[in-house]
This record gives sequence, C-alpha cells and structure tokens, in this order.
Amino acid sequence: MKDNVDLLFNPKSIAVVGVSEEITKLGSVIYHNIIESGYEGELFAVNPKYDRVFGNICYRDIKDIPSSIDLVCFVVPAQLIPEQLEHAVLTKGIKAAMIISAGFKEVGEEGMQRENKIKEIAEKYNIRVLGPNCLGYINTRAKLNCSFAGAPPPEGGIFFLSQSGAFCTAALDIAQKRNMGFNHFVSYGNKAEINEFDLLNYALNSDFVKVVGAYIEEITDGTKVYKLIREKNNKPVIILSPGKSEKAKQAISSHTGSMVRSASIRTQALNQAGAIMVEGMDTMFDLMMAFSWSRPMHGDRVGVITNAGGPGIIATDKIEEVGLKVADFSDETKQKLREVMPEAASVQNPVDVIGDALAKRYGDAIDILMKDSNVDSILVILTPQLITQIEETAKFIINASKVCSKPIIAAFLGGKYVRGGVERLYDYNIPVFDFVEDAVESMAYMYRYYNCQDSCTFHNLEVQDIEKSRKNEDELLKYVGEEQKALPEDLVMKISEEFDIDIPAQLVSSDIEEISKFCADKYPVVIKATTEDIAHKTDLKAIYLNLQNEDELRRSFDELQSNIASLPDRKNKGLASILVQEMITGGEEVFIGINRDGASTVYDEDFSDGGFGHVIVFGKGGIYTEIYKDIDSRLLPLTHNGIVNLVESTKVSQILKGARNARIFALDKVYELVDKIQKLALSYPEIASMDLNPVFVTEKRAVAVDMKIFVGK
Amino acid sequence: MKDNVDLLFNPKSIAVVGVSEEITKLGSVIYHNIIESGYEGELFAVNPKYDRVFGNICYRDIKDIPSSIDLVCFVVPAQLIPEQLEHAVLTKGIKAAMIISAGFKEVGEEGMQRENKIKEIAEKYNIRVLGPNCLGYINTRAKLNCSFAGAPPPEGGIFFLSQSGAFCTAALDIAQKRNMGFNHFVSYGNKAEINEFDLLNYALNSDFVKVVGAYIEEITDGTKVYKLIREKNNKPVIILSPGKSEKAKQAISSHTGSMVRSASIRTQALNQAGAIMVEGMDTMFDLMMAFSWSRPMHGDRVGVITNAGGPGIIATDKIEEVGLKVADFSDETKQKLREVMPEAASVQNPVDVIGDALAKRYGDAIDILMKDSNVDSILVILTPQLITQIEETAKFIINASKVCSKPIIAAFLGGKYVRGGVERLYDYNIPVFDFVEDAVESMAYMYRYYNCQDSCTFHNLEVQDIEKSRKNEDELLKYVGEEQKALPEDLVMKISEEFDIDIPAQLVSSDIEEISKFCADKYPVVIKATTEDIAHKTDLKAIYLNLQNEDELRRSFDELQSNIASLPDRKNKGLASILVQEMITGGEEVFIGINRDGASTVYDEDFSDGGFGHVIVFGKGGIYTEIYKDIDSRLLPLTHNGIVNLVESTKVSQILKGARNARIFALDKVYELVDKIQKLALSYPEIASMDLNPVFVTEKRAVAVDMKIFVGK
Repeated sequence: MKDNVDLLFNPKSIAVVGVSEEITKLGSVIYHNIIESGYEGELFAVNPKYDRVFGNICYRDIKDIPSSIDLVCFVVPAQLIPEQLEHAVLTKGIKAAMIISAGFKEVGEEGMQRENKIKEIAEKYNIRVLGPNCLGYINTRAKLNCSFAGAPPPEGGIFFLSQSGAFCTAALDIAQKRNMGFNHFVSYGNKAEINEFDLLNYALNSDFVKVVGAYIEEITDGTKVYKLIREKNNKPVIILSPGKSEKAKQAISSHTGSMVRSASIRTQALNQAGAIMVEGMDTMFDLMMAFSWSRPMHGDRVGVITNAGGPGIIATDKIEEVGLKVADFSDETKQKLREVMPEAASVQNPVDVIGDALAKRYGDAIDILMKDSNVDSILVILTPQLITQIEETAKFIINASKVCSKPIIAAFLGGKYVRGGVERLYDYNIPVFDFVEDAVESMAYMYRYYNCQDSCTFHNLEVQDIEKSRKNEDELLKYVGEEQKALPEDLVMKISEEFDIDIPAQLVSSDIEEISKFCADKYPVVIKATTEDIAHKTDLKAIYLNLQNEDELRRSFDELQSNIASLPDRKNKGLASILVQEMITGGEEVFIGINRDGASTVYDEDFSDGGFGHVIVFGKGGIYTEIYKDIDSRLLPLTHNGIVNLVESTKVSQILKGARNARIFALDKVYELVDKIQKLALSYPEIASMDLNPVFVTEKRAVAVDMKIFVGK
Repeated sequence: MKDNVDLLFNPKSIAVVGVSEEITKLGSVIYHNIIESGYEGELFAVNPKYDRVFGNICYRDIKDIPSSIDLVCFVVPAQLIPEQLEHAVLTKGIKAAMIISAGFKEVGEEGMQRENKIKEIAEKYNIRVLGPNCLGYINTRAKLNCSFAGAPPPEGGIFFLSQSGAFCTAALDIAQKRNMGFNHFVSYGNKAEINEFDLLNYALNSDFVKVVGAYIEEITDGTKVYKLIREKNNKPVIILSPGKSEKAKQAISSHTGSMVRSASIRTQALNQAGAIMVEGMDTMFDLMMAFSWSRPMHGDRVGVITNAGGPGIIATDKIEEVGLKVADFSDETKQKLREVMPEAASVQNPVDVIGDALAKRYGDAIDILMKDSNVDSILVILTPQLITQIEETAKFIINASKVCSKPIIAAFLGGKYVRGGVERLYDYNIPVFDFVEDAVESMAYMYRYYNCQDSCTFHNLEVQDIEKSRKNEDELLKYVGEEQKALPEDLVMKISEEFDIDIPAQLVSSDIEEISKFCADKYPVVIKATTEDIAHKTDLKAIYLNLQNEDELRRSFDELQSNIASLPDRKNKGLASILVQEMITGGEEVFIGINRDGASTVYDEDFSDGGFGHVIVFGKGGIYTEIYKDIDSRLLPLTHNGIVNLVESTKVSQILKGARNARIFALDKVYELVDKIQKLALSYPEIASMDLNPVFVTEKRAVAVDMKIFVGK
C-alpha cells in the first residue's frame, strides 16, 4: 500500500478532471497551481465540454489521454465522482486519486452513501484516495502544488497534515510569514480512504521529513496510530487535537469515568506514544519552527544573553517555571566574559551585555558560552535600543549556529525596528521568537522530547504478551450487553480471587464460635448485618467498627443480633447471618480505576471503532480523590517500569515513600496490585470500567476494600 | 506634590542641559525629539561650549535663559548633575527635573552617593525628579516626546510606566506594530525621587487614562502602592513584575516561609489590591490592547462566529478552560441564523458560517448575536480561505462595534493574507489577535476584572481598625532582635490565651488523682513525659496516645512513671511531672500560617522598606500540606468576607463543608480562628512568622494542636 501513497505524492503524470475555462474555478486554480509550482511531470486537463483550456489540450474523457496516469484529481460535482473514479481505474488503471469536491458525509445521509461508494471502489481496486472535501496537497520537494491553496511555502523538513482545510490555509499563511520550510502540506478532509495513519506512516518513513505537524479532530484507528508513533519514534510528531470540552460521548457511570474523558484519553495515549501534544495553534507553530530549525536540545542548562535586565529576569522566571535550569557558568567563562565585557555588564547568567552593546559584544558572549560545558543551550535576547545593531547581531547568531552543536534560540523583542533582524534569522533557519516566554517554552518542549526517549521501557506494545485468565468468562458474559452493567458482588469476589487481588478477609456466619475463631488473628474487625432491611432502619445500628478483641466482638455480636431480631420480618427466625470482615486501619488510601476507550472489540486486529483500549488510573483515594484530583493515567499494557512511572507521577506516591513521616508503605504491593488489575482488564476486554476506591496501603499490604466492575459491549 | 508631577509631564517650557552639536548624542536626540513631536511650549538648549546648536540659540548657563523654566532635562555626565540641579533650582526656581544620564546607583558606591545627593536636593527644595538612568517620557496628549526613544505611538488611553528603559523601547516598538494608542510612556529608571507610587497615582487620577500598564522590578513602598490601587480601583492596572524565581532574600525558618516567598507576596498583594498581574510581555500587550479598545466585558457567555470548524473547536476548548461559557443561543437567534445562513452552516455556538462565507454573512451573524440577550460577547474567527473577503469582513466588525455595547473581539488566523484586515481593525481600535487562544485568554482576563469589583469587601484598608492587644508585650520584646527567634512554649501559651485561641486542654502534674480528675470529661487523652532526657531514649516509651478511660490512663501512667524512673538521672527522685493533654481526634487537619513581608516597622506611616506587611496563609494541614500545597494567602487585614474568601479558595474547604461525606465541620470556628490569628499578628508587628500545623477542625471546634511563633525586627 505504501507505494501507492508515494504515487499520490510523487506522480509522474496527473490528470485534473474538472478544469474549466474560468480561471477562478477550483479545477482551474489547481491546474494552474500545478503548472506554476514548477511541476516537471506530465499534466492533463479533462472536461467533456472543452477541447482546449488556457491554450492546452483538454481531453473530453480521461480514457482519451495518450499516456499512463499516476494521479487523477477530481474537481467535479460530488454525485459524478463515484462513477468517474471507477471509470478512471478501469480505463487508465490509475492507482491514486484525490477528490477535492465537497458534498460527501459532511452534508448528511446522501453524501455519506456517496462517500461509502468511494470507500468500496478504493478497496475493490486497491487504490489510494485523498479526500474528499479537501484542499489537496503541496509537495515542495517534487515542486508540486497540487492544491487550491496559495503559493507553496519554501522547501524544508516539516510534513504537515490537517483534517481541516481551513486550518491548512491559515497554517500556510502563518508558515510563510515565518519563512518556515515544509516538504508536504496535506489537507486530507473527510478521509474516506487515506487517514491520519497512512499519512503519519508515510511521514515517519520518509528520510526527508524531520518534523511532523498534525491537526487531527478525531482518529480513525487509535490503537494503530498509537503503535505506529510508539514503534517508529524517530522524529518529533507535534499534534494539535482539540475537543476536550466536548460532552463525553458515553455517560460512564463510574467515578473514574467522570475524571478521564474521551478526548483526554486520546491526548494521554498519543502523548504516551511519544507524540508532542499541544493545545494551541501558536504553540504548534512555535514548536514546528523550533524542532525543524534547532539542534537537538539534550541538556537543561540554559545560558542567557541579553542587552536588558528586565527581559533577563523574565527569562529566568520562565526557565525555572518550565523545569529548565539557569546554567552556572564555569569560572573560566566568567573570566573570559569579564575580559571582553564593559564593567557594568553582568558576567553571571543571564549575561547582561547592557544597553550599548553592539553586535560584536553579543558575538563574543555567544562564543564564550558555546565553549562552556556547563551550558547546554543559548538564549539570545535583544531589545532595540538606541545603538543596537539588530541585523548585525542576527549575523553573529547565524554564524555561531553554523559551528555550534548546541541549540541557539533568539528572542528579538519589538516590532518594526527588529523586523530586519528577525527576517534574517528566519532566512537562515534560526528559531526566533517575538517574546522571551515563547522562546523558553519551546526550549522546554524540546528538552522534554529529547530526554524521554527511554519512556519506551514503560510500555508493552503487544496486548498479546500479557498473561491472561478468563476463568469466570461464562458468568461474566451474562452481564455483557449494549448497556453498561455493574457485576454483582459475588462475581467481583470470584474475579478478585482469580487475579489474586488482596481484599479484606471476610466470613458470613451466624455462629459466634466460628466467627470468633476466624477473627482470632485478624483484630480489629468489623461486623455488619447482611439482612438488607436493616440498612434502611436508621434508628438501628447495623455495623460495628473497630472491634479490638474477642470481648468486644462477642458483645457487639449480641447487640447486632438483638437489633436484627427486633425487625418485624425477622421475628422468631433465630440468629441472622453476619458479615465479619477484618478492618484495615492506618493505611494510606489510594485509588485505582480502569476505563475503556472504544468498544470491547478494541483489541481485535480487524475491527476498530477508533478507540485506544483500556486506560488505567492511579491516585489518591478516599475523600480526597475528587478534591485534589491527584490522579494520573496510562494506556495499557504497561511494563513494570511503566507501572512505577504511573504511580510516581502522583503526589500521593511521596506519602507512600514516607516523605512526611517515618512510615514506609508497601509500594511493591501497590505495583503488584496495579499489574493484577491490568491483567484483569486485558483478560476481559468486556470490562468498560473499574473502580477500586479506596485501596488501603499499609506497611505490608495493598488491600482493595471496595471494588466495582462495569461491563459492556 | 501632585502639581509638580503634572509640571513634569506638561511643562510650558523645557531646558535641555547637554545638547551638543553632534546629532547622535543623547542630548541632541532628545532636543530633536521634542521639536519633532510638535511640542508647542518653549524649548531651550544649554551647553557651556556653544552659542548656537542646530541653528538655535544655546545658553552657556541655565540662569541665562530669559524665560521661566518648568522642566529641566539633564544629559550631562553624572558627576556634574547634583551641582547643576541645585544651580537650576536656585537660579531659575525650577520645580521639575528629568535626569537621563546613567552613572548612579547602578554603578556602585560612588554612584549611590551621587544618587543620594539628588534625593537630598529634591527633598530640600521640594522638586520632582524623574530618573536618573532613564529614557525620559512621551506625552502624546501634549505632543511631547521628551525621551531618546524613537517615534511616539499614536495618542490613546494607555499610560505605560517601566522601571527598565530597554523594556520601554521594546514595548514602544511592539505598540507601534499594533497601532496601540498611549497617552504617556514613562521610563522612570533608578527612581531616585519619583517612583511607581507617584506615577500610578498620577495615572489613576487622570481622566485621560483608561488603562495603566506597568513594568515594575521592585516596589519602593508596598503598603502605599497597595492602598492606592485598592482605594482608587477605577481603571485596569496591568502589572508585569518578574522575579519570583529569585532566591528569597531572607531565609525564613518557618514552614510557611518555604511556600510564600517575597515575589509571590508582591504578586499576591497587588492582585488583592485589584491590579491585573501578568507573567509575560505578550500577555501584557494583549491585555493593554483588549482593555483599552474593548467595551467592558460584564458577562461570561461568549458567542463564537467562525468560517472554519477546527478553530471553532479550539475556541470552545479554550473558553471552557479559562472559565468562560460557550453561550446557549435563544431559539429566536437560531431561527434567524437559519434564515440567513446556507444549509451546511451551523447555527449552534460556535456559528460556522463555513468556508465560502463572504463578508456579508459574517456581518449577518454578528448582527444576530448582538441582539441575543444570552450572548455577552462575540468572538469573530477568520481563516483566509479561497474567497474570504478579509478587509470587507473587518469593516463589518468595525461597523458592528460602533453600535454594539458588547465586546467584539477578533482572531484573524494567518500571516500575509490576513494582514490587510488586521491592520484595518488596528486602525479602528478593534482588539484582534493572531491566535484564537490569545483572544479567549484576554477575554477571560477582562471578564474576571469586571466581575470582581466586589472584592473590596474582602479587605480592611486600615490596620488601625483592627482591635489589638499587647498584654504580653514585655515578655515578647525580649526575644525580638535582628535574627528571627522562636518564642518559648509557655509564652506561646500565654499569647494563645490572650487571643482566646482554642488549644487542647492540658495539665502538668505528678499526681494521678489530680490527673484523673482533670481527664474525667476529656477522654481520649494523651500523656507524655516532660523530662527532656527520655525523648532521646528511643528504647523507652515516652508518649501514650488515645487513652480511652480511667483504667487505661492509670495503667499507662504507671508504665510511663516506671520508664522515667529507669533513667539514670531520675534515680530516687520520686514521681515525675507528666503532661496530660486531651486528644483531638477525627477532625480534618488544616494549616494556618503568617508571614511578614518587610520589617517590623512595615506599618509605620513614616518608614518603609518596601514591604507589604503580614500575609496570612490557610490550607490543608498535616502530612498533606507540602504534598498538595492546597494553600492560599491574603494580605492582612481582612474583613469577615475576606476571611471566608480565603478559606473558600482552598480545596480543603470543600471537605470542611462536608462535600465528600455527611460530616459538617465547624467552619465558623475556622473563620474565628483565622480572625484571631490576624489580630494576633497585627497586634504584634514584631511577629515575623507563625505556624499552626495542624489545626484540628472537628464538628464543634478548630483546635490549634501545634503553634509556633517567630519574632524579629
């Protein structure tokens, strides 16, 4: 299949179906864009109404074209397209098509049927189709603007794909303002056939692509995209995927559900795969610029050079805020700076070259910091003062960047005055920002990206690798339907046994001797009435907590029995069955949850509804769960390292490690329990969600005191 | 004093001392800037070396000028200035001066002495002095560019002041790019005499000023600036004040100190006063534009109009993220939209006018939303698509803004293509942003500003109004020195009695009968050894917790006594004194802290070290304090409303209100305790910090179980 996508982007011949004589019509715009972009392959116009368009031959039917056609581009009314597409395949054997026309699933049922027809044809003849309802694409390397967007951006390392055409046009305009270089600019519209997976796959496998930028509204196949990014992991993939404020598609009844919603799962999963998730168009462009132009940022120690104190302070604040460090210069560096700087200059970090600095002084400072092994990257801040040499300073930055293996990032503050310098930096592909804050933020993103490569150890890619068990399959399947249902307590108990989950020891009995024997090594204990009725009698006590010894047990047992006996329907029925349970005390309460994104078939190879699968949630439990929302989540399956990483990403893990008091809790039992819950969820894809809240973590155990399981298709 | 500041900014005559024949020298630049800006007053050049400069008369001495002089501007070497300033005062009676020259406190001891000299002269003769080491100022209303910065910005409603000159030049350049209108642009440099208080005071009292923007690195008199902004509170004051990552000036030993640092106190205090605190230059400019150009934003329901789905989704996400609401349109609005929009358009919010929208369709949508009472503000998003009428759409927005009382904010996404539209909007003072996210963020700032005017009820302006007590003054003063010291436990006890602070009932005795009687109504209790030695003997038990009844008390008392008796130095000394204390259980743990910003003289009228006074901190206590940092702080003194607002701003207050379980805690006692602590701190300004951690809040009490007080000058 891959070759056909390549044929789409690098065709030796193109037929545009729907070129008219009117220059403003889309077909004509594309036809001219192809010519004007310098395309060197063969180009044919097709329209039954004309013999010639704009002085060139126009074919009445695609079959009349005397050459073979690699790519056919349709710009005719939607209702004609299914037939014409099949005609092109049958008569010319085309393998790749692009449908610009709108009028498909975005216009309702009839359009949807048309779009399904396209899908069928694509599958039947094994052809690749971009669109419908898209702008087309630009391939700068092939000198081919096969779109109705304006002038192409310069050639460069960025592959940009967008589900939204309008986002594409705005992006193209922004990119040109910054002179950012792209190799592909792809609008993929309704994605009848080619979707984000295909485009990301193409981009990640292309040696010419350095950075991928993607605007994605929803993902066709979550697990496939997840694995692709996770496995390749060879270049920055920056994704803007909005929609977190959408009402969640399913109303999930569980506690977990209220905190992890669908769009968050998408963000969490793609982030975990290694993609760089951003929330705004501004950040997206800042990062595409920084990642494609800057050297890799491996260290966190930033050296700052500025000709003004204020912006230096702002930079220092921001550097610490985003988790980078203000570098400590070596003595040699300070000495060398002292030699070339005027007395009033600061040779600490930030280096204040002061307001009268000419370009050379900036150049000297950059040279010195470049050689300091305590400095991992350099931020050059310029304000346009009276004698500041703006373009000259840009030149020094450009020259230094040529020989320096460290990232050099610039922030030129101002408007008209600094414009010349900024444009020069753009021309030489030096990342330059209007504001210090944006520059530092981009540096932080780069640092995090280049320093979390080892996160691959957090994740098993294959669900199949997890040891599974389905001993309770028959009983569980009884509850699996279209609607989500809670499993009954006894089945939850059986499943917790199946996966060896630590729950409080318990016994149901009416015999105090049996109960007393059971409790001998378990004090303190709790006893509860099992008779449903008593729960509604608020004047009668139905639960006795924290019984410390046999005396208290027997006394409470008698009291509880007499309470039960006083109920009208218990008259003369003898001793009631009592639930006795060990009472877990003094532990730290944590929370473990499971949420499934997608249907129960989400792990099937051949079927996808766009979901990512099960996500596990861990965090502070008990009454603080919703107050502090100290929870984090990960897509399953996780390796042991991944489990540790999940737990450690929460603040409550500091308590478990004994940060605030001498007690050390059984962290290993927590990891084990998370692992058991992951096996449970992956063994039963029918599980839609689970809540374990609280789990009591003591010095020796991690006990699931309350566990709920919801299943559904 | 106020008149003199006005004389500085609106002089009828100016003398520039230090104009030379060289056009590039600062003195000449200023002289020319004054002329070129269209200044209509009298202007004189002074330089002993020349008779004429640039064809005009040059006076060898200021005293030779035949007219009276309102403002003298010095651009001569620093060492000459003190003498020349005094000379100008004595010979010409000048009342206002501006010192451009550097070479004062920023260059060390000698410069500092020079600067002090300036201060003395200013005080002696009651004159106002701007600078030294500044750029000067621009007053667009007076058509006066009395600075060496470039061309002045257009006239408008913003008063901008900056401690940093470089920040000024960059700001000026940015402002011009956006065509933002200012009435004053003031660089106030080393602030030998005129400081941020004077300038803010001038700006807040000027009818021509609509918005104030300030870049402030440190504040000369915190309490004065606080009261000024708090009391006037008549226009938006946007402050960028970096430095939060600075190492805190004082190492404060208390727990509180580690969480509330000096720069945070500044931000907290100014924010509480009603200023809009920002962290970046970009936000500062966005807000100066939005506040000065937009109508006031009183409601939170935003109507969004877009010609592209993607940016509409991004807007929706951002609107919810920042705490605004996506407006629900009335049925009438939907109906009217349906009538004028094509079928594929969305008449829900965001209104998607779709990609082929011409300007008129935007205009229609704006008109309809303007009339919907469910819509408080309108965000118009434009992406440059094939037939988008960019400048025409801008015109519709401009015309609508003229008649609409609701804020209309634009986001034109792109670069070159949208430039024409953006510039037209700038020209007509319509806030327009490059990115949707920035637009929405600015709207959120505006909404918060116009909707927290009632926060004045949170704060007593006068420390004097608080009822005070200093019964323990004599003893406390013994501990007050340069270094901070912790007060001994018995004095802390006395002070807690003085302010009626609820602490656990306790008794020190060796008599078990007395102890038993004391405990009768207090179980459970705790007993502890008071003998210091035992604390270090880890093999001996020195504390018995949770004693439930007399039996347990007597048993534990005997055991504790025998443990103590086994110590070598306790041999044959009889029964030891034991501390018995009621044990507070089952409460929610909270934290109350006090931190003083500035010295103990901070509340004195005549003296200031720049501090703001006492800040109170409230939040979650116990082991979670540092883990969740669920704390907030307020500058004292607070009204009852202010105390409630502080407590409610923390998440733990939800627990106290019984959010997660049936229990209701004694919130009123919490408010009372906070009030008592505030009285305590304000009664003793010598208190540098206090820690009450934990405070146990039960159904009936708020008990300070552990209280520490630190004092210092």
